[in-house]
Amino acid sequence: MVSFPDVSITVPEWVQREVRPGERYVMPEDRMRFVISLAARNIERETGGPFGAAVFERDTGALVAPGVNRVELSLCSAAHAESVALMVSQRVLKTHDLGAPHLPKLELVTSSQPCIQCYGNLWWSGISRLVTGTSVAQTTAIGGFDEGPVPSNWAQLLRDRQPAERSMEVVEGVLADEACKVLELYARKGGARY
Amino acid sequence: MVSFPDVSITVPEWVQREVRPGERYVMPEDRMRFVISLAARNIERETGGPFGAAVFERDTGALVAPGVNRVELSLCSAAHAESVALMVSQRVLKTHDLGAPHLPKLELVTSSQPCIQCYGNLWWSGISRLVTGTSVAQTTAIGGFDEGPVPSNWAQLLRDRQPAERSMEVVEGVLADEACKVLELYARKGGARY
Repeated sequence: MVSFPDVSITVPEWVQREVRPGERYVMPEDRMRFVISLAARNIERETGGPFGAAVFERDTGALVAPGVNRVELSLCSAAHAESVALMVSQRVLKTHDLGAPHLPKLELVTSSQPCIQCYGNLWWSGISRLVTGTSVAQTTAIGGFDEGPVPSNWAQLLRDRQPAERSMEVVEGVLADEACKVLELYARKGGARY
Repeated sequence: MVSFPDVSITVPEWVQREVRPGERYVMPEDRMRFVISLAARNIERETGGPFGAAVFERDTGALVAPGVNRVELSLCSAAHAESVALMVSQRVLKTHDLGAPHLPKLELVTSSQPCIQCYGNLWWSGISRLVTGTSVAQTTAIGGFDEGPVPSNWAQLLRDRQPAERSMEVVEGVLADEACKVLELYARKGGARY
């Protein structure tokens, strides 16, 4: 007897069709351009909010898994782009710890700096580097999104994390102008904010 | 063609068998005792870590959905007890917003104060009250768990949230001694920490 439903979080059908696992995005800008294009396509196809993210192998740039905002269509307030990319990657690699010793070093690239929720998810995800596009200030100013009480020293807290092998590199503001444009497009279209 | 797997988060089979949706837990202590018993059973049956949580209707005490820690068995670092309870509840009520106007007021009761990840999840969940058992200090001292950089004024930030209709009541330390006992049991058994 099933008393409680399973939670199911999926990437959109167009992601399954258009995005290839293992495809290599060599340069940091290639990776950021890819996640910005996820955000843009997520608006165009009306499959969620204006955010894209992906987990890559740091050294090779091979794509592990993409994520887009799926809050409304997955009926799940936790289904922000970053968290979807992390959760799908953990499923792809069959571990809850993306920092497990048998894995290559992994990074999360996101079109917008994580909100308080995705910031929290980073801590137990196992990724060793985070690369962001727009800042919280830009996401709030342009998109009108509430990002929650992200501490001003958020990046330093990740860098200073103990034990040292769990500390995280943080690279901010890659292609931020291009990432801002997607938020501007969404704001002009009058999309939902959540 | 499916390139990327679905994420699936489930409650354990014993929860499906032993817990009844809609059952009423009238007093605050009844609700806390129930989530502590979820944590204890999750250890006994070896289905996850020593944490339990549940979403209830505030006025009636009717159970919406329970959650237990499912990190290892769901291959998902986000599957902490509180987040599982929130995600399953959103699925039960068919909305990403547990604060939607058509719903009764809902609360999350958790055997341990939320870590940085679950703290972040609270912000977009829509619950209007949080009730905790052990504090972060107790969870760390007894269970050896890393709870991340939860701000010292975390409860006040939830209470002061704007707009005012999104502010959250926070009640701390309900049956904390009983909640501590489950962490002590887990520590004695030498369970995994994640």
